Amino acid sequence: MKIIIDTFGADYGIGIPIEGAIEALKSKEFIPCFSGEKEKIEKIIDGRIKSYEIIDAKEKIENNEDPVRAIRKKKESSLVKGFNKLNEEGYDGLVSSGSTGAILASGLFISGRIEGIKRACIATSLPTYENTSLLLDTGANMDCKAEFLKEFAIMGHVFAKNVLNIENPSVSLLNVGIEEHKGNKLSKETYKLLKASSLNFVGNIEARDLFTGKTNIIIADGFDGNIAIKTAEGVISLFGKEIKDAIYKSVKTKIGGALIKDSLKENLSKYNSDGIGGAPLLGVKQYVYKAHGNSNKKAFASAILGLIDYINTDTIEKIKGELK
Amino acid sequence: MKIIIDTFGADYGIGIPIEGAIEALKSKEFIPCFSGEKEKIEKIIDGRIKSYEIIDAKEKIENNEDPVRAIRKKKESSLVKGFNKLNEEGYDGLVSSGSTGAILASGLFISGRIEGIKRACIATSLPTYENTSLLLDTGANMDCKAEFLKEFAIMGHVFAKNVLNIENPSVSLLNVGIEEHKGNKLSKETYKLLKASSLNFVGNIEARDLFTGKTNIIIADGFDGNIAIKTAEGVISLFGKEIKDAIYKSVKTKIGGALIKDSLKENLSKYNSDGIGGAPLLGVKQYVYKAHGNSNKKAFASAILGLIDYINTDTIEKIKGELK
Repeated sequence: MKIIIDTFGADYGIGIPIEGAIEALKSKEFIPCFSGEKEKIEKIIDGRIKSYEIIDAKEKIENNEDPVRAIRKKKESSLVKGFNKLNEEGYDGLVSSGSTGAILASGLFISGRIEGIKRACIATSLPTYENTSLLLDTGANMDCKAEFLKEFAIMGHVFAKNVLNIENPSVSLLNVGIEEHKGNKLSKETYKLLKASSLNFVGNIEARDLFTGKTNIIIADGFDGNIAIKTAEGVISLFGKEIKDAIYKSVKTKIGGALIKDSLKENLSKYNSDGIGGAPLLGVKQYVYKAHGNSNKKAFASAILGLIDYINTDTIEKIKGELK
Repeated sequence: MKIIIDTFGADYGIGIPIEGAIEALKSKEFIPCFSGEKEKIEKIIDGRIKSYEIIDAKEKIENNEDPVRAIRKKKESSLVKGFNKLNEEGYDGLVSSGSTGAILASGLFISGRIEGIKRACIATSLPTYENTSLLLDTGANMDCKAEFLKEFAIMGHVFAKNVLNIENPSVSLLNVGIEEHKGNKLSKETYKLLKASSLNFVGNIEARDLFTGKTNIIIADGFDGNIAIKTAEGVISLFGKEIKDAIYKSVKTKIGGALIKDSLKENLSKYNSDGIGGAPLLGVKQYVYKAHGNSNKKAFASAILGLIDYINTDTIEKIKGELK
């Protein structure tokens, strides 16, 4: 299996995707195909892996560029060259921690949409108190129609069933209240569509239940899904800081902290993004994963391993089957 | 000063608003005017306060009712009778922990909108690492236009300046990225309006910065603002549970927990809602406060005290002045 790895885009530099790939190779076999500056990549690899390919690409798409214009203009960028390579025989998937907009645009214009799907979306796994829930869309589509959200639900259903091994996954709609009449125009219309579908729709869910594990799949438009995951990220980081401050306050609290540090770490570590690392771009014809911009090597390795699971379960073919 | 207190609507029963009022009377002078079932109210007060009034009302508006229909139909409800009383001479403000929709509808149809304001909104104070930020709207308006969001910003500005004592408060727009071109149609249009206004607009803010205290006022439509605060609530409650689990794991962790418990409580208690308790309904002609549905007596008391500050600063008159 050949996995294309965009080496540009990680906040902490091109070392992250490369070290992430080396890390991932410890648990799964695959051939990494690095897209980026050849010389720099080889220098970082430094003979540590034997079997790999390089797509030499000097251009980089930045986060603040208009995505569609950027992928049209920067034909020599690591992302565009990577996506072009993915269309060739023998390449199985692509992972990038670059601009979400540019990954989406490349997915739509270079890989192409699955027939019958109007919008591709990003499906983020949320660690919860009990298990994992899938939230989609978390940032690909800013202005949605109800029919797009229904598509997200169908794709989430296939992904949860095949990649996460959940039989008949429950589907909820992110809303401001659990009652059917609550919400904005979009959520009211989507409620009706989901209720009439053959999915295991269990109703609205409030954002305070996003992390309780009440439901397997949570549907939102990309704007709201993004607000939700970033709010959670913010609170998690804030609490990390406050707990640290609380421990470093006095000798007494430092001793207390030393005694519960490991236990706290055990319980809270699942909420940092390292263990998840990435999210699939569902709805395009190729296997594409978005890794977190601020990934460390462990998080990037998780993204690669997630992508491999996604490929191995043949999920795209199953999504096509579900749409027939 | 006379404050009308709706005794229906608190999740934990009519005891909460009454005990909250008794608690608030310890720090500020006012005459509570309780709306609800006279006999039950008197039984709970049990002679503990001398100076109070009762609006006898037997009907209750439930959370799952259609708000506009409910306030039209239930003329004898504690909320509708309370709002009618508020229009009489000598009554200064009203607080309720009942249905947000019904409070909004009563505000609009019984109190009336301030001239020049198209939508009323709910302004929630967010505790942050450094200070307090104001998020509005957090649930009154589901489908917004950019001009409504600009109104929220103006009202937030006046509230922050007068009630929170912040000179020239900074205003940010909740969005999925900090760049001007990011977001959905609504956020792009709102960005332009805010940029062109005389407000101290400092640009977009991502949801992960909601609790860092980077900005004084954060503008969102009621759907997104609600998703954000409820996501935060969910994560805060989840972390509370995980920390407890981590402490109760073994003898060692229990000892550690005992040593840092007070310090943790000191750092984390500002994030539970008791200290804030309520949020003003801005944009209506009367002083109205929404208390949290799951308030305890301390949280309800905070809501009453917040309402009194809001009244004492003459903020509604100042909003009218700002619109001229």
